Order: sequence, then structure tokens, then C-alpha cells
Amino acid sequence: MFLTRTEYDRGVNTFSPEGRLFQVEYAIEAIKLGSTAIGLKTKECVVLAVEKRITSPLLEPSSVEKIMEIDEHIGCAMSGLIADARTLVEHARVETQNHRFSYGEAMTVESTSQALCDLALRFGEGDEESMSRPFGVSLLIAGHDENGPSLYYTDPSGTFWQCNGKAIGSGSEGADSSLQEQYNKDLTLQEAETIALSILKQVMEEKVTPNNVDITKVAPNYHLYTPSEVEAVISRL
Amino acid sequence: MFLTRTEYDRGVNTFSPEGRLFQVEYAIEAIKLGSTAIGLKTKECVVLAVEKRITSPLLEPSSVEKIMEIDEHIGCAMSGLIADARTLVEHARVETQNHRFSYGEAMTVESTSQALCDLALRFGEGDEESMSRPFGVSLLIAGHDENGPSLYYTDPSGTFWQCNGKAIGSGSEGADSSLQEQYNKDLTLQEAETIALSILKQVMEEKVTPNNVDITKVAPNYHLYTPSEVEAVISRL
Amino acid sequence: MFLTRTEYDRGVNTFSPEGRLFQVEYAIEAIKLGSTAIGLKTKECVVLAVEKRITSPLLEPSSVEKIMEIDEHIGCAMSGLIADARTLVEHARVETQNHRFSYGEAMTVESTSQALCDLALRFGEGDEESMSRPFGVSLLIAGHDENGPSLYYTDPSGTFWQCNGKAIGSGSEGADSSLQEQYNKDLTLQEAETIALSILKQVMEEKVTPNNVDITKVAPNYHLYTPSEVEAVISRL
Amino acid sequence: MFLTRTEYDRGVNTFSPEGRLFQVEYAIEAIKLGSTAIGLKTKECVVLAVEKRITSPLLEPSSVEKIMEIDEHIGCAMSGLIADARTLVEHARVETQNHRFSYGEAMTVESTSQALCDLALRFGEGDEESMSRPFGVSLLIAGHDENGPSLYYTDPSGTFWQCNGKAIGSGSEGADSSLQEQYNKDLTLQEAETIALSILKQVMEEKVTPNNVDITKVAPNYHLYTPSEVEAVISRL
Amino acid sequence: MFLTRTEYDRGVNTFSPEGRLFQVEYAIEAIKLGSTAIGLKTKECVVLAVEKRITSPLLEPSSVEKIMEIDEHIGCAMSGLIADARTLVEHARVETQNHRFSYGEAMTVESTSQALCDLALRFGEGDEESMSRPFGVSLLIAGHDENGPSLYYTDPSGTFWQCNGKAIGSGSEGADSSLQEQYNKDLTLQEAETIALSILKQVMEEKVTPNNVDITKVAPNYHLYTPSEVEAVISRL
Amino acid sequence: MFLTRTEYDRGVNTFSPEGRLFQVEYAIEAIKLGSTAIGLKTKECVVLAVEKRITSPLLEPSSVEKIMEIDEHIGCAMSGLIADARTLVEHARVETQNHRFSYGEAMTVESTSQALCDLALRFGEGDEESMSRPFGVSLLIAGHDENGPSLYYTDPSGTFWQCNGKAIGSGSEGADSSLQEQYNKDLTLQEAETIALSILKQVMEEKVTPNNVDITKVAPNYHLYTPSEVEAVISRL
Amino acid sequence: MFLTRTEYDRGVNTFSPEGRLFQVEYAIEAIKLGSTAIGLKTKECVVLAVEKRITSPLLEPSSVEKIMEIDEHIGCAMSGLIADARTLVEHARVETQNHRFSYGEAMTVESTSQALCDLALRFGEGDEESMSRPFGVSLLIAGHDENGPSLYYTDPSGTFWQCNGKAIGSGSEGADSSLQEQYNKDLTLQEAETIALSILKQVMEEKVTPNNVDITKVAPNYHLYTPSEVEAVISRL
Repeated sequence: MFLTRTEYDRGVNTFSPEGRLFQVEYAIEAIKLGSTAIGLKTKECVVLAVEKRITSPLLEPSSVEKIMEIDEHIGCAMSGLIADARTLVEHARVETQNHRFSYGEAMTVESTSQALCDLALRFGEGDEESMSRPFGVSLLIAGHDENGPSLYYTDPSGTFWQCNGKAIGSGSEGADSSLQEQYNKDLTLQEAETIALSILKQVMEEKVTPNNVDITKVAPNYHLYTPSEVEAVISRL
Repeated sequence: MFLTRTEYDRGVNTFSPEGRLFQVEYAIEAIKLGSTAIGLKTKECVVLAVEKRITSPLLEPSSVEKIMEIDEHIGCAMSGLIADARTLVEHARVETQNHRFSYGEAMTVESTSQALCDLALRFGEGDEESMSRPFGVSLLIAGHDENGPSLYYTDPSGTFWQCNGKAIGSGSEGADSSLQEQYNKDLTLQEAETIALSILKQVMEEKVTPNNVDITKVAPNYHLYTPSEVEAVISRL
Repeated sequence: MFLTRTEYDRGVNTFSPEGRLFQVEYAIEAIKLGSTAIGLKTKECVVLAVEKRITSPLLEPSSVEKIMEIDEHIGCAMSGLIADARTLVEHARVETQNHRFSYGEAMTVESTSQALCDLALRFGEGDEESMSRPFGVSLLIAGHDENGPSLYYTDPSGTFWQCNGKAIGSGSEGADSSLQEQYNKDLTLQEAETIALSILKQVMEEKVTPNNVDITKVAPNYHLYTPSEVEAVISRL
Repeated sequence: MFLTRTEYDRGVNTFSPEGRLFQVEYAIEAIKLGSTAIGLKTKECVVLAVEKRITSPLLEPSSVEKIMEIDEHIGCAMSGLIADARTLVEHARVETQNHRFSYGEAMTVESTSQALCDLALRFGEGDEESMSRPFGVSLLIAGHDENGPSLYYTDPSGTFWQCNGKAIGSGSEGADSSLQEQYNKDLTLQEAETIALSILKQVMEEKVTPNNVDITKVAPNYHLYTPSEVEAVISRL
Repeated sequence: MFLTRTEYDRGVNTFSPEGRLFQVEYAIEAIKLGSTAIGLKTKECVVLAVEKRITSPLLEPSSVEKIMEIDEHIGCAMSGLIADARTLVEHARVETQNHRFSYGEAMTVESTSQALCDLALRFGEGDEESMSRPFGVSLLIAGHDENGPSLYYTDPSGTFWQCNGKAIGSGSEGADSSLQEQYNKDLTLQEAETIALSILKQVMEEKVTPNNVDITKVAPNYHLYTPSEVEAVISRL
Repeated sequence: MFLTRTEYDRGVNTFSPEGRLFQVEYAIEAIKLGSTAIGLKTKECVVLAVEKRITSPLLEPSSVEKIMEIDEHIGCAMSGLIADARTLVEHARVETQNHRFSYGEAMTVESTSQALCDLALRFGEGDEESMSRPFGVSLLIAGHDENGPSLYYTDPSGTFWQCNGKAIGSGSEGADSSLQEQYNKDLTLQEAETIALSILKQVMEEKVTPNNVDITKVAPNYHLYTPSEVEAVISRL
Repeated sequence: MFLTRTEYDRGVNTFSPEGRLFQVEYAIEAIKLGSTAIGLKTKECVVLAVEKRITSPLLEPSSVEKIMEIDEHIGCAMSGLIADARTLVEHARVETQNHRFSYGEAMTVESTSQALCDLALRFGEGDEESMSRPFGVSLLIAGHDENGPSLYYTDPSGTFWQCNGKAIGSGSEGADSSLQEQYNKDLTLQEAETIALSILKQVMEEKVTPNNVDITKVAPNYHLYTPSEVEAVISRL
């Protein structure tokens, strides 16, 4: 059976007899190998927390960017192939800047998520901006616009959903369960920080330090926590 | 025999010795994995009802869109790959807006369905707007124009038919039988709502709530039911 | 031997050692799966009759179009992949309208048939208008021009012939024999209607009703029979 | 050994280890399946005679064209894929008309044959006018120019030769032998007609009638015989 | 071992593990199947002699061209695929004419040979003038320019060499040995004619007649021998 | 299992079922075959030291360039395919010059690293500047800008990290361990030189001489050590 | 194991699991089949000596060019596919002429070598000037510029090195050892000539004559030795 399956999964964008797109499914596997990232929405803001794998003590922790700013009101955490994520984020930055220039206002979080997924969906089409394979990355997009705070989750198939909380990467399964248990809609920012980091701590093999995690809030603007701000959250665990 | 078959189905757009196009048939399989959607036409309007699979309690139900507006007089329900459906709907929105701009009037429901199928048929042709594989999605297009209400059904082969009632997705087989039994041409809007939702309830594994179904009417304008309007229909079951 | 054969038929447009083009032969198989259509020429006009497969009682019979108008003096019946036929017919409509615009007169039936076959022959060439595989459809083109009525038959290889009578689709073999027996060149329109429908009746599994057959005459203009006109022919059987 | 061979003949335009081009050889096989055509040159003119396979009594014999006019002084008989031949003839018609327009005189028969072969040679090159496979057709090109009458024979490899007599198609082997026996350079037009048709008669399975053969002379202009002219030649056999 | 080899020789322009280009080697095989051609240089001129295979008594011998004029001071004999040779010769004719037009003087024989090889080398590159496979033809290029007479030999790899005498085609091996024995640098034109034709006679299966051989000299202008001039050479053997 | 794996790794840019990109992993193997290079950052400057494999005493040592200047404030050491590295460096030189020209200031080290990785990521996309395979090279980019000295490390996947110290090439594993042991953030330039060269000495098979190593500092400008300067460092070991 | 290897080496420009590029390695094999060439640098000049394989006594020795002039101060010896080498040399000639025209001075030997390697590296990229496979040739580039004499060696991977002496082709292994033994940096031109030819003599199967070797010096201008100058060197052996 497996032999037969290989007949289909080499085609970059071809259906298998069961109606599956294997290259997309394999790209999703790439994300399961990635570091864990967690997003959590409160009434006022969104918090993102990510694990950074520091493979060598000589590595500069700040150069391992797993959370990036897209616009002043939008940021995203990523898991999977970092170079792919950079391409997507760069694309989103251009889109949001163009929107500001053309319409004189910020792009909504949903439109930004849609623009990212439009690019992700076009893999294998051979046009100028698209990739020849699916993007091997998932994003948690945190933003704040006229509708208040919102958190979107995208996967390599070019689909996106809005969530109150979501985990991606190698520890996502356990982290998602914990999120469902601990989430309630009246969380304060401080509670959200504590929940996100405590769940991240559970799924990380190493001790949590300001060096190997990053925390960001969008409330309503993007802010990446300084080491001392991270330290403060750690101390509350 | 199966080995021989694999020789043909890897070609994206190639006939098998029996005159079949396997990639289209496999795309149709993708739809059988999708959530169920039901369309029902009355003398005055069309009703669409869809199941929404809410895989996590933290998912925002309103971001799982299985019914989308195309123009103020046309909407569609979908089953299959959601990202593909979004591309088709976006294409249809552009077409209907262009039509309004060029001719100063709304595009008919049939022309809109044809425009969607023209794009679906062109897969594998390598031109700018088309996909490299069939679109893995079926649509129920509900609209209202100078000919009154109409309901169209499209599949991945780029073919479309006009129906009085139709179900698509994983529960379509049972739902279609029920529709044929319960349909009559003198249905009122309220009866149509009740029939659509009661059939959807039969094929859904979970309890029906305003969170996991969406209902839309085109009568003559597109209207997506609010949670309380959905609740009202549920209470009549 | 069959294994060897598969080596050749995957190439979209490649000769086998016996000088055959398998993709064209397989497309012809697709037509043998289609519904039956019959064309019959008299001295004054051409009659087309087709079977419509109504797979569900909720399907709108008039939306199952197996006969389409090309120009006011030309129509065609089809068997095979309906979406492919729509592309060909749309192409022919543009060609005939362009001809009227450029030369101020109607395009002849032969030139229209040639234009359709030129497009059909170009499959696999990669240019803008052509398909990446043969068109999986046969057409019966009925028209009336300065040479009087004429009936053309096209197949997926891009070849066309002029006939006095011809059947295509799943019941074509039996229907062709019946046509040869019953045809004579002095048929009246009414006799042609009766012969075409009675032969269609023989090869259809279901009872003939105005819902599941369509009849068209080109005499000299295209006219699709209304349900009551079809009923009148049925009643004469 | 046969397995090894199949490795090469799938490439459209690739040499085998023995230095052969299999796709061209297979296209030549396609011609051996075609109807027989015969060309014969006299001092004053060229005569072409072809078999027409009328597969159904309802087929219009005049629509089975196996001899076509290229210019008023050139015609050709064909055997093989008729749709391919139509493309070549259409190309030659454009070339000869362009030549008349540019130079104010008729194109020579040799230049016309060369133009046809230039197109035939370019298969698999991917440019706009060429085919993705060899043309599956042989032509007998009969013409009359300042050098008097001439007869050329082309094959799918893009090669052409000048002959005094030549047969192509399924009966070509026997017909060529008979031509060599009966040809002499002092034949009259009437003798040439009789020889061509009597040889054609030998290789045809059916009785020769004005319906299933066509005869053309170029003397010095192209003239397709009317049924009664054909009948006259038949009566002399 | 042979199986492994087939892995490489299907690629049109790919090295095998031993550093060989199989498609070029196979094209050279195509030439070994061709008719024999002989070139011989004297102090004053170059003589070319070729075998013409007249496969049918009805074939016009003068239409079997195995020696062609490139410019008034250059001609070439060929062996292999004649249609390929025609393309190369046509290319060389355009180059030499352009050179005359641009520089007001004849192109040298070496530059002409280089231009031919440049085209031959570019196979498989996909640009407009090149072929998708190697040219299956060898040429003997005879010319006369400011450096006196010269004879060049080209093969499908796009390489060329200058020679005093050279044979190509099916009889080349034996002919080359005879040429080496009989050549001396003080040959007269008449001796060269006799040597070339006597060697050709040895390798031909049929009796030599003015119909089945062609002789050309470039001394200093291209001249194709008339039948009676060929007869004169034959009579001297 | 290995057989199955080969199904995926031939595709230049295709995910395997485990979510891996084999061509990128294989390119990383190419680097493990390369010569060792070491980078080390101090508070004031960055030091690069590389092994040069002098395969023959007749080879000019200065022509084996494993460290190249990108701009006056940036240099890089490389390991892997040198021709690939040259292409990347040439690209970076154009980018930094363009930046100076457009903005009147030096490009930052991070932007330069990003520009290099953008090109590396685009392999297999078919556009003009990209390669058809991953670049088989790793770079250590040493620079000095408004943020002081910095050291970046890139790999064939198009990812980059900022480090305090890093080794690449065949001896990288042992060298990285030594670097971690000996690095402290208060190193002087002289200490950095000594550490880099002593670690390089450990992993090299041959004796260290000014001929087979190169040392560069960026402090704040790029400076390649002269043989006597290298000799001075060697003498301190 | 060998079977697995064949999976990778068919891809023109694809890494194997060990990080190797097989097509480049196979092209290097093509060079091992070529004739031997030797380059040797002195303080004042560079000497190149090559073996010419004269396969037939009728071949014109001067037309077997294994050493070619690039510019008046640069020449190169080659081993491998001569037609490929011609393409590279022609490219270099254009580059050096353009450089003279644009900058009014001669191109340096290093820049010329780089330009040659840039073209060699781009194989398989599909752009206009590049080849679809690696160039199957190695070059020894001898030149003289403001830095004095220099000798570069290029291989099919697009890499180049500067040397004092180097041998390429079938006899390169033995010749390289002899060069290392006999080279010293104070060689005179005459000594260099003698060493180069005596080493060439050792690896050639035939007796050395002015017909089967070529010698060139660049001192400081390119000069190809006349037969009598070659004879003089031979007589000194």
C-alpha cells in the first residue's frame, strides 16, 4: 500500500485517490518538528510566547527570532522552517505598508491573514512570488484593530482560523489541551502571560530562561518583552 | 489492475484507457471528506444550511466560514478544501463586481456559476489564474435574479446543474434522499429552514447548536442568520 | 503486451509503435460513456434529439443542456464531458459572431465545424486557447446556410464528416443501425422527428418524457422544442 | 531487447542506440493504416487517384476529402491522419498565397513541397506553428509550373522526393510494384487515368464507384473530377 | 551493465559516468546507416563524390540531392538524415549571404564550417534556431577561398577538422583506408575524380551509373557534374 | 526504507513524508566535505581563520581564496563549493554597493546576511538570479557596523544566525566544542587570533604555515593578514 | 548501492546524499579521456605544450587546435570536448574585447578566468548563454598582465586555481608528478620548453613530431610555435 502511495506524493500538487494532497500533509509534518509557540487572546490584548532552541552557548539568543513584527498592530509567532516564515512575513509587511499608503489606515488582522494565505496557497503555480513547494511553516498571527484583539492560526494549506488560544510546533498537542483547560474569556493580561509561559515550560525540555523564550503582547501595539520583562513573568510561575 | 491504473492517475489531466480523468475523480473524493452542506429552493427564496466542524473550544466559530456572500443577491455554501473555495469565491466576487460596473446591473446566477466553472475547468493549463490541479471543492450557489430564486451545484470537473434541492459533503448521500422525500414546490421559507436543518441534524455527529451550523437565505438578498435566528430555527425542530 | 502499451499511452500526444494516438482513443472511450444523441437531415432541415440523464428528481431538467445554440442558424448536440463541450461551443460562438462582424454575413456550417476541429486538434501544444488533453466530447453540428441544411459529426481527433444521419454516445451503435434502416432522403420534418425520437426511445433505459429528452430543429433557424412540442412528438410514437 | 527499445521511443525526438528516431517510424506506421492514394506523372500533367472509405451509407461522400487543392496549379492526395493533413495543407495554402502576393507569381511545386517539409521537420520544438509530435501523414503533391508537371512525395520525417509515380497508404506496396510495371514516360492523360484507377481497384476491398474514389488532374490547373467524369474512367477499366 | 547505461542515454544532453554523451554517439550511428560520400583535395581544387540510393525506378534521380551548393565557392556532401542536412545547409546559406552583404566579400570556408558547428552544438538548448536533439548528419564541406582549396569534415558533436581526404557514411571505413593509400599531394583534378569514383564504386552494391552517383568540384567555383560529365569519369575507371 | 526515501530526494524542492527537504540536507553534506573555517567575535572586532588545502606544491596559495571581502566593513569565510560561494559573494557585493549608492551609507551586516539568504532560499524557482539547486556552501560573515562587530552564520537552507563564535567545514564539530570552552566575552584581538588558529591547527592534518591558512580581521575594516602577520600569530601558538 | 547512485546522477544539477554533483564529476571523466596538455610558468613567461591526436594521415595537423589565442596577452590549452572549449574561448574573446573597448586596457588574466568560470557554473539554468549540461572541458589559461605572467587552471565545476605548473588530460597524473619534480622558480624559457615537451613525450604513445604537438609561449604576447620552432625544441630533448 505504501508503494502505491508514493506514486502520488511526489507530485507537488496532485490529489491521491483518497482526495489528499500529500505535499501539504508532509509540510505539516515539518511543523511538528519545529519549536513550540503559544498564542492566547484576552479581552484587551493578545499574548504570544515561543520557545527558542539555543543549540550553542555561542549563539546570540536575540538572533533566533521566532516572533516577528508585521505592522505596529500585528505580530506573529512561527514554527517550522524559519527561512520560509521570513518570506511570508516580508510579504505581509509589504502588504500592510501598501495598505497604509493606499488607504491611509491600518490593514485589518483578517485581511493580513488572508494575504498571507493567498501566497501560501499558490505554491507550485510557477508565478513570480510563489514557491515551488508548500511553505513549511505555521503562524500564530496576533493583532489589534477596530474589532479589538484577534488571534489567527494559519497552516501550509493556505487555510486560516480565528482562535482564542492555540499552540503550534512539536509540543502543540499537550499545550492545546492545557490551553483549553486554563482559558477563560475574562483573563487579564498578567494571567495570560502566566498561563502561556507555564504551558510552554511544561513542553520544553530545558529550564525556562530569558534566553530561550520570547514573549510578545499586542495591546494594542506590538511589544517584544525585554529580558527583564521576561524574567518578571518567569518569576511569577 | 490497480497497478495499471496508477499509470494514468498521476497525469494531472490525462485520460485513462476507459476515458476517465482520475485527478478530477480524486478531487471529488476530497469533497466526500468535507463537512455537509444543504441547499433548498422555494418559490420565493433559497435556503443554505451547513455544518461547521469546531475542532477546539478555543476556535472562534464565526471564523469557520462555510457560507460566503458573492454579491448581494448571491451566496454559496461549500464542502471540501476551504482555501480552494476562497479562491473561487474571490474570483466570482470580482466577476460580479466587474459586471455591475460594465453593465450597470447585477450578474445573473447562471452567468456567475458559469464563470466559476470556467475557472475550475482550466486546471493544469499553466495560465495565470488557473490551478495546477482541480479545485477540490463543491459549491451550492444560491441566488435571486430576474428569473426568481435559483440554486446551482458545481463539482471539480467544471460542470454545473440547476436543482431544487441538493446536499454535498460527507453526509450528502443520506441527506439527498431525505431532501427528495421532503421537498415539494410549495414550501414556505420557514418550512425550508426546518427541513434543511433537520436533515443536517440527522447527518451530524454532534448536537446542533448556533455554534456549529450556519444558515443563510437569499430572499431576494443574501442574509446570514444571527445566532439567535439560528437558535429560533433549532427550537422549531 | 498490455504492459508495453502503457509505455506509450501516458504521453499526451505520442505515437505508439503501431502508429496510434492512445490519448485520442481514450477520449473517444469517454464519449461511449455519455448519453445518446441523434441527428437526422431532411431536404429542408436538420433534427437533433438527445437523452438527458436526470439523476435526481430535484434536478432542474432545463439546466441539463445537451443541445446548445451556436448561432441563429447553427446548433449542436453533444455527448461526453459537458464542461469540454461548453468550451468548444463558446469558442464557436465567438468565431461565428466575429465572422458576422467582419464579413457582414453568417459563417457557413462547414467553416464553423472546421473552426471547432482546429481547436480540438491543438491539444497538448501549450498555447493559450488549447487544452492539455484531447477534448472528451463528440458533437453533432446541425446548420442551415446557402447550401441548405447540413449535419456534421466531430470526434476528439479533430476530424469531421458530413452525414445525413448520425448517433453518438452510449447507445450510438444500435441507433446508427436503426438510422441506416429508416433513413431516406425524402423524409419530412415530422417523419424525421418521429424517427429520431423512436430510435432514442429504443436505446434509453427510462420511459421517454418531455423532462428527459430535448429536441431541436434548424429549419432554417435554431429552435429548441418546448415541453409541449416534445410531448406532441412523443404522442406520435 | 524489446524492453530496451521502449526506453528510447517514448522520447518524442531522441535517437535510439542504433541512430533511429522511433516516433518518426511510428508515424510512418500510422500511414500504413490509411487509405491508398496513387500519383502518376505524364509529360503534360499529373493524375491523383484516392480510395475513400465510406464507413456508413449515411456519410456524405463529398465530405470525405482525401485530395485537396493547395493553389490553382498544385493539389495533393493524402494518407494517414486527416486532421494532420488539413493543418499541413492550410499551411501550404498560406505560403503559396503569400508568395503570389509578395512576388506576383505562383510558387514553384518544389518550394511548396519544401515549405511543407520544413513544418513537418520542426515537431517537438515547442514553437508556435509546430506540432508536439511528427505529423502522421504522407502527401503526394501534384503540380505544374515553369518546369512542367511534377509529382513530389513527402513522409513524416520531413523528407521529400520527386517521382514519376508513387503510391501511399495501406495498399502502397502492391500498388508501387504495379506502377513500376505499367509506367512509361510517354503515357497520355487518358492512359494515366486508367492505370491509376485500375491499380487502385486492385488494392481496394470494395467495388469501385464514383462514391468511394476521387480523381484529380493538374493539367496545368487543378481539377477534381465530377462523379460523371469518374464514372467515365471507371467504365474504361 | 547495459541497464545502467540506459539510465543516461535518454537524457538528450547529459554525461554518462564515463564522461560520454550518448545522444551524440547515437546520432553518429545514424550516419553509419547513410549513403557513402567522399571528399578529396588537390592543390587546385576539391572533388566530392556521393552515392545516391535510388530505391525505385520511378524516383527522379536529380531530386535525390546528396551534394548541395552553399555559396558559389563552397559546396557540401552529406550522409545521414537528409532533412537535418537541409536545415544546416539552409542556415549556412543565410550566413554566407549575410557575410557578403555586411562585409562585401565571401565568407571563408573555415568560418562557414564554424557557423555550421555552432548550430549543431546548440541542440537541446531550447532556443529558437536549435534542434531538440543532435543533428543526425555528417558533412564534407569543400571550398575555395584566399587560402586556396580546403576540405572540412563535421560530425554531430559540433566538431570539425580540416582534411586532405575523407569518407563518411556506411562505406566510410573501407573508403578511408583506400583514400590514405591512393592520396598524394600532387594529384591532378582528373586523378582526384578517378580516385574518388573508383573508391566509391568499391563500396557501392550497385553498378555505378550517372543516375546513382553525383560528382562536384570546387575549382574555384562550385560545379555539379552533368550526367555526361559523370559518364566521362565513369568511362575512365 | 532507503528505497522509499529516494523517491523524495530527487525532487529539488519537495517535502518527504517526515517533512524534510532532502536536497537541502544533501547540500549540507557537501559542506561537511569542505575545509574548516572559524569565526570569533570580540568586543572590538571579528576574526576569521580558514584552512587552505594546497593539493599541489605548484598551486599558488594566494589563489585559493577561502576568505573574501564583501565591502570594506564586511568579509566572509566559506566552506563547501567555492564556485557557489563566489556567486553569493558577488551578489552580496552588488547589494552592498547598491545600498551605498542609494542611501549614502554602508549596509548593515544583518541586512547583508539577509540578502545572501534570500538568494539562497530561492533555489529551484527558475527565475533569473537563482540556482536550480541549493547553494552547496556555508558562510561565516564577519562585519562591523553602527551596532559594533557581529558574526553571522548561514547554511544552504537560507537561514542565518548571529553567533559569538562558530566553526564550519569538515572539522567543525571538534572546533565548535573547543570554541565554547575557550570563548569569553572579554577576549582581546590577540587572544582571539591565537584561539582561532590554535583550534584550526587541531583539526588540520598538515602543519600550519602561512601558506595553508588565511586570517582576516574586521576591526572595524576588513584586513586580510599578510604572510608575515600570519607567521606572527603562528609563532605565538 | 550502484542502483541508488543512478537515482541522483541523472539530475543535471542535483546533490547526491553525500553532497556530490555527479554530472560535474562525469564531465571531469570526459576530460580524463582527452589528450594531455601541460602548462609551466617561469618568472618571465608561461609555456603551454599539448599533444594532438592525428587519427588519419589525411587530417590537416594545423586544424587540430588544442591551443587557442584569447587575446594578444592570453592563450589557453584545452583537454576534453573541443566543441565545448570553442564555445568557452569564443565567450572569453568577446569578454576581453569588450573590456578593451569599455576601459581602454587589457583584461587581467584573473578576470578572464573568472568570466570563463561564471559561464561554466551556470549550466542547467536555462538562460540564453548557458549550456544544459556542464562544459566537458578543462583549460590551462596562460597570460601576462601588470602582475607579470600567470597560469590558471579551470575545471567543469566552474572553479579555478592559479598554479606554477599543471597538466590536464589522460596523462595528467604522471605529468603532474614529473612537473613537481622538475619545477623550480628560476627556470628560463628554454628550460621550461624542454621540461614541458619532455614530460609530454613521456605520456604520449607516439613519437613526438612537429605534427602531433603544439607549443605556445605568452612572453608577454601570445605566440604559437612554428613547425621549425617546435622541431628546435624537440632536437634539444
